[in-house]
Amino acid sequence: MLTHQRVLIVEWGDCDPAGIVYFPRYFEWFDAGTHSLFAMAGLQKAAMLDAYGIVGIPLVEARARFVRPSTFGDEVIVESSVTAWRRSSFDVQHRLLRGEELAVEGFETRVWTARDSHSASGLKSKAIPREVVERFARA
Amino acid sequence: MLTHQRVLIVEWGDCDPAGIVYFPRYFEWFDAGTHSLFAMAGLQKAAMLDAYGIVGIPLVEARARFVRPSTFGDEVIVESSVTAWRRSSFDVQHRLLRGEELAVEGFETRVWTARDSHSASGLKSKAIPREVVERFARA
Amino acid sequence: MLTHQRVLIVEWGDCDPAGIVYFPRYFEWFDAGTHSLFAMAGLQKAAMLDAYGIVGIPLVEARARFVRPSTFGDEVIVESSVTAWRRSSFDVQHRLLRGEELAVEGFETRVWTARDSHSASGLKSKAIPREVVERFARA
Amino acid sequence: MLTHQRVLIVEWGDCDPAGIVYFPRYFEWFDAGTHSLFAMAGLQKAAMLDAYGIVGIPLVEARARFVRPSTFGDEVIVESSVTAWRRSSFDVQHRLLRGEELAVEGFETRVWTARDSHSASGLKSKAIPREVVERFARA
Repeated sequence: MLTHQRVLIVEWGDCDPAGIVYFPRYFEWFDAGTHSLFAMAGLQKAAMLDAYGIVGIPLVEARARFVRPSTFGDEVIVESSVTAWRRSSFDVQHRLLRGEELAVEGFETRVWTARDSHSASGLKSKAIPREVVERFARA
Repeated sequence: MLTHQRVLIVEWGDCDPAGIVYFPRYFEWFDAGTHSLFAMAGLQKAAMLDAYGIVGIPLVEARARFVRPSTFGDEVIVESSVTAWRRSSFDVQHRLLRGEELAVEGFETRVWTARDSHSASGLKSKAIPREVVERFARA
Repeated sequence: MLTHQRVLIVEWGDCDPAGIVYFPRYFEWFDAGTHSLFAMAGLQKAAMLDAYGIVGIPLVEARARFVRPSTFGDEVIVESSVTAWRRSSFDVQHRLLRGEELAVEGFETRVWTARDSHSASGLKSKAIPREVVERFARA
Repeated sequence: MLTHQRVLIVEWGDCDPAGIVYFPRYFEWFDAGTHSLFAMAGLQKAAMLDAYGIVGIPLVEARARFVRPSTFGDEVIVESSVTAWRRSSFDVQHRLLRGEELAVEGFETRVWTARDSHSASGLKSKAIPREVVERFARA
């Protein structure tokens, strides 16, 4: 299973008056993790949208469990991997670690989405191509 | 049940290259909704921490379901209310509406938290005072 | 001179570990102020870009002077107005007030910008239409 | 002159509906650059505040000049260095480069600041210790 790892340093501006990471930042880091994971699979966003005629992989759900706070100057690791593929949606899991300890766990559900002039929203879900899924199956 | 309502306009800087609200912003708005709800109940954050000897009401879990995107210039309403009180934790629900339509739904679980020099984290959960809960029961 | 005023409450998530507004937020508020000022002049962004064949009014310079810090829960006012019009660029001034006191002063220089397939950047500045300027001259 | 360099990738969430970096982000990156520069000089923020009895090095002015936009996926370099030391204030310059090209230039003026129970703001500027300045003079 392809896993993307990113080391990052918690910055002053990531933290709130309690001196700990302001939690929406974790969702930003997880979102960046998903994009980097796809790029690691050879699916750079702009090229991917062109190649598959989609408008994006928008979230339908995001969730995080906050186990331990992190603070200014901490070095943390964000690990991101796809944990489930369905017909037109998929799940991404993120683990933010401080040393060996799990600090935050994140979950995203995203949809492979194309334009559709016939729907009210102008959008519709589309089947995820098999070759996309296969890119993530590498060791 | 006490419900806080806030009207807000989606700003240019709230949106991503797809032209829709970048989802971590929703979590910022929900967090602000919780603080405003507590203030509406007479529990301004700084005074509340002093009065009850707590360090905060940190999140242990946050979740959102994205039903419809919103875009630059949209007027949206964020409704926030506490949906469950337990011994030392509670749930806040947020509904972001565009007109009559639900656009995003958010859920937070937070813990009434005090300092504790005896624990590894330096923190411990504390029983939520009955008078706090009662402030939210008003019509 | 047209001036846009917006009242806002400083949120927990706007503040840094020192308990005061993290300064890049001021630039977000000033940017929102410019957009609101234009909307107040009848120039909603999307419609304005269409009507005048421009791609935007990007910044070439931004500056702020921080006189007094603001903190969580403070009510502040942001006043925005255009202070100079030139051929293809203009200046916006922002004043963030707490009560009667000036807390932050901001300055932006922006350019009326169209696409240009002949330039390296794909963009070129364009003369600002007189009718745009006149919209801001109202009492 | 001590110069801090940081390579960063522009993320989806850093960009606005025009598909380019939303400019307040540059100020976040510059702020992080200043903190990293001080850490590189052996002045980690928390330890520095303790060692010198100051509450921080708050900004009195920030400015940026936007020469070229950057977009999602771009690799950029942020270079930060102190360009002037005065009695109690100093200037930091930041250069954001894409390849060899200057894309954004940033300027900060900050003040060496201690608590002061006798002043209205509760704060006062303090002389910057010579040994602090000397740490930045290294090759």
